[in-house]
Amino acid sequence: MGIALSDLNHMQLAGFVSALGETFELAPWVAEAAFAKRPFAGVTALHEAMFGAVRAASRDSQLAFLRNHPDLAGKAARAGALTDDSKREQARVGLDSLDEADYARFHQLNDAYKEKFGFPFIVCVRRHTRDSILAQFERRLRHDATGEFAAALQEVFFITRLRVAALVAGEDMPRVNGRLSTHVLDTHAGRPAVGLAVELYELAGDHFIRIATATTNADGRTYQPLIGDRPLPIGRYELRFAVGDHFRSRGIEAGNPPFLDIVPLRFSISEPEAHYHVPLLCTPWSYSTYRGS
Amino acid sequence: MGIALSDLNHMQLAGFVSALGETFELAPWVAEAAFAKRPFAGVTALHEAMFGAVRAASRDSQLAFLRNHPDLAGKAARAGALTDDSKREQARVGLDSLDEADYARFHQLNDAYKEKFGFPFIVCVRRHTRDSILAQFERRLRHDATGEFAAALQEVFFITRLRVAALVAGEDMPRVNGRLSTHVLDTHAGRPAVGLAVELYELAGDHFIRIATATTNADGRTYQPLIGDRPLPIGRYELRFAVGDHFRSRGIEAGNPPFLDIVPLRFSISEPEAHYHVPLLCTPWSYSTYRGS
Amino acid sequence: MGIALSDLNHMQLAGFVSALGETFELAPWVAEAAFAKRPFAGVTALHEAMFGAVRAASRDSQLAFLRNHPDLAGKAARAGALTDDSKREQARVGLDSLDEADYARFHQLNDAYKEKFGFPFIVCVRRHTRDSILAQFERRLRHDATGEFAAALQEVFFITRLRVAALVAGEDMPRVNGRLSTHVLDTHAGRPAVGLAVELYELAGDHFIRIATATTNADGRTYQPLIGDRPLPIGRYELRFAVGDHFRSRGIEAGNPPFLDIVPLRFSISEPEAHYHVPLLCTPWSYSTYRGS
Amino acid sequence: MGIALSDLNHMQLAGFVSALGETFELAPWVAEAAFAKRPFAGVTALHEAMFGAVRAASRDSQLAFLRNHPDLAGKAARAGALTDDSKREQARVGLDSLDEADYARFHQLNDAYKEKFGFPFIVCVRRHTRDSILAQFERRLRHDATGEFAAALQEVFFITRLRVAALVAGEDMPRVNGRLSTHVLDTHAGRPAVGLAVELYELAGDHFIRIATATTNADGRTYQPLIGDRPLPIGRYELRFAVGDHFRSRGIEAGNPPFLDIVPLRFSISEPEAHYHVPLLCTPWSYSTYRGS
Repeated sequence: MGIALSDLNHMQLAGFVSALGETFELAPWVAEAAFAKRPFAGVTALHEAMFGAVRAASRDSQLAFLRNHPDLAGKAARAGALTDDSKREQARVGLDSLDEADYARFHQLNDAYKEKFGFPFIVCVRRHTRDSILAQFERRLRHDATGEFAAALQEVFFITRLRVAALVAGEDMPRVNGRLSTHVLDTHAGRPAVGLAVELYELAGDHFIRIATATTNADGRTYQPLIGDRPLPIGRYELRFAVGDHFRSRGIEAGNPPFLDIVPLRFSISEPEAHYHVPLLCTPWSYSTYRGS
Repeated sequence: MGIALSDLNHMQLAGFVSALGETFELAPWVAEAAFAKRPFAGVTALHEAMFGAVRAASRDSQLAFLRNHPDLAGKAARAGALTDDSKREQARVGLDSLDEADYARFHQLNDAYKEKFGFPFIVCVRRHTRDSILAQFERRLRHDATGEFAAALQEVFFITRLRVAALVAGEDMPRVNGRLSTHVLDTHAGRPAVGLAVELYELAGDHFIRIATATTNADGRTYQPLIGDRPLPIGRYELRFAVGDHFRSRGIEAGNPPFLDIVPLRFSISEPEAHYHVPLLCTPWSYSTYRGS
Repeated sequence: MGIALSDLNHMQLAGFVSALGETFELAPWVAEAAFAKRPFAGVTALHEAMFGAVRAASRDSQLAFLRNHPDLAGKAARAGALTDDSKREQARVGLDSLDEADYARFHQLNDAYKEKFGFPFIVCVRRHTRDSILAQFERRLRHDATGEFAAALQEVFFITRLRVAALVAGEDMPRVNGRLSTHVLDTHAGRPAVGLAVELYELAGDHFIRIATATTNADGRTYQPLIGDRPLPIGRYELRFAVGDHFRSRGIEAGNPPFLDIVPLRFSISEPEAHYHVPLLCTPWSYSTYRGS
Repeated sequence: MGIALSDLNHMQLAGFVSALGETFELAPWVAEAAFAKRPFAGVTALHEAMFGAVRAASRDSQLAFLRNHPDLAGKAARAGALTDDSKREQARVGLDSLDEADYARFHQLNDAYKEKFGFPFIVCVRRHTRDSILAQFERRLRHDATGEFAAALQEVFFITRLRVAALVAGEDMPRVNGRLSTHVLDTHAGRPAVGLAVELYELAGDHFIRIATATTNADGRTYQPLIGDRPLPIGRYELRFAVGDHFRSRGIEAGNPPFLDIVPLRFSISEPEAHYHVPLLCTPWSYSTYRGS
């Protein structure tokens, strides 16, 4: 599926550009500029050489490059005129299936943004929930031109780092993925809570969207991370633990209804490439949580 | 408003029955029977004497007495044919303003109940949320006749204890009220969290109904109990603490969005006459709660 | 025993000075100067007027005043030539019964201090443990002359505030006392731990001196504060809770020996006039503590 | 060093007995009996076959076998007449270097025990601290003959399982080792506490013997388990964490002296083959611990 870095290091210019050309949106000149820096010791160095070419380009070239990005949830998306990478990325966060009101909202923000800055709003959607894209849109609209130009390039950095990491395999891969994990300890029994049902919700406005379910194993953990192998989308989340069922199954009385039944832990993620460990320590009468490691 | 126990102890039969007659639904004979036990050392003793008269009555009298209770949320309630006490009690839990679907549901349960047991479903609504009345309705429909007869009398005990306690003032008042309180400690600073916003919600099905708001004082407590001076309605609740605003006001960085913003504590109340203390210990990165005292 | 502030407000000069003269060590002129400020609205105002007289005095008078203070644990103490107040205060912290080595240590520090600053080391011993007096002695020996003069006067402020508060009764008493309290919650059972033995130790070097014992009551608290009605001596402490016995008495298995038996909480006090609440939340397998309120 | 199980499976009787003969104290007949059960699928099966031979032996043979064990800390130990295995095992727990009082105590217990049961007190010392050996000695002296005979054989099981596991390498090794680990989270900062000093003490009577020191790494853990690669000795322990230094190094004010300086966690181990994880969650004003996993 991917390309080996060692192969890239031995390619001619045409093959090199053809292999990497789409990672920087409609800008094969980026791969051409990076070609001169071969061989690359690692994938991180390859991406930095490519992004360095963008940074070293003239302001006019940079601007043209930014302008070549599609509108977020824009007409291009609906009409299907996106690069494959852009299409996949926008779909994952639900931007390809907005209702009319949300579509209008994005459309209006896009127009205001382009009117102010002269290029479309660019954001690495893989690092965000829909809520957080909207929040960032509104925050960045308040930037001045210089600040926003830098912010847009930073997003290009995140977008292309993910694309390069997905495309090329080799030494020193860039760190692009985070991990969300949990662990349930029953401090009433002094051992892990086994077989306890866990749900993970994303908060979208005032709705809760369930995005994962799991059951704790013999060590009180879930077999898979609740989110893994991808950047953690910046946003608000709620974990829900079926604590009442757990203690009921142990035959413990704690009132009717029990003092604790579904325990929600609500928290936010702001570092997509980090490990968030959000454990639960509980008895039928108490619980605690913390950002662990 | 109320009557002094010492006055009751000196009344003639007619006055005594007139004063207490309505506390046991349409059953002045209860007050008449209790009259013989005067004087009463305390209000608890007065209520026990009255309830003892019910317990000592023939099965037929008891059944007639139970049959005199109005349907819960029934036609009587809509048509206004309730005693004043019944009217107030049903209104507080929202039973006087059901929508058509819920009204139909209660109506159907009432019919099934009366068909099975021969008297209307009686419950001390002041000790319940709507959810918990429905849960109890369904649980009690599964009783056998003997078990349910006892359960109905137990509810009469709760209802009349509240009425007597509201009507008569004197020594040894029955314990009819509970209390829900909270306390917020900022264990990052090692002191109470001051000025932190707290909201209390009741869960009704999958809706949250906000029933109280407060702000913590210099000691991290609320000036008034979140629920007080009444029985705590059995049911599910959620406290929400504006932890993010608190740490933001202290100038502490904890991510954007902050790891903790609104912290929900979800718990149930099953003992209406008890004290529930549900405190929050928090830092920007951790929190814990417990049933305290 | 004490004097009413209202009586002081009506006394002649001689009586006033006789009543208050000893509160400022061998300095009746302080009371004389304060006499002019009568009447005093509160005891705090009285003490502030007296201490204001010291502050307003010439440097020579202040120095003479400081020089009139006895050596801490010095020859005067052994020979009995102390004012009654000084005697009592030094005895409470064990300075009247030092062994030869400690006596020599204090003697040597005193000599070095007087050599450097020209007056004896003054400290409000009621606000300190022995460890903390030694620590402060060594820290203050490193002061420059100006800094130490101010530090000595600050200690005079604390000493005389305590003496005035002990002697005079009236409105607006100065806040001179702190309080150390605890509370034990059994979060395994969801209720206070009743009848649990608690011990309080003071750390002196690497020895532990037991200074209080108590048993928790029905609310999980001790009937009396562990330290109260006096300033909390600055120093290191350890609370020990017989958690193992508590859970054994509830019939709970937690290993042999049990995972938790005696639980020590070690903490320091640095604010003698504050309230320190140091609770324990415990199960047979976990515990937590915090500075509460 | 060890012997491969596969080699054992192919040996002649003489070699087999010579290789394994010392694992069961002065009882080559045990290896002889097990020889018939070859080949062994795993080391656990080998040990079970050998122990099965003891269990299947006549009461007289069993008694003779038990009688061949040396006195714990007895004359044999002092005079050097122990098997090498016994010598090493007794030395590790300090039984070869008792002072006269303790030696007399053990001697007296040994005499009482042999008088009552007819064989010396046998205990798997590697699974115990000195305190716990004494506690067990006194507890087992109160057994009746049948109960104690079984208890002594159970100790033989533990002793020989360790010896076989140390001697023979192969599939399905018996689980003979436990692990004690810790982890320090700074919930004030929301990340692991790095470079924090940790000490582990064993409690012996009212003395604390330091048995391990460590410093937390970037993940808040210690590079090595605090105890590992051996059975965890049953007994009482105290972990001490230099929490005050940690927060001081972060520049955080928490009083002088700081509210928390050295934090002791005292706990007991009762399952030598288990994993004990004893973490610390702390801020400058609070901490908690639990038996984790």
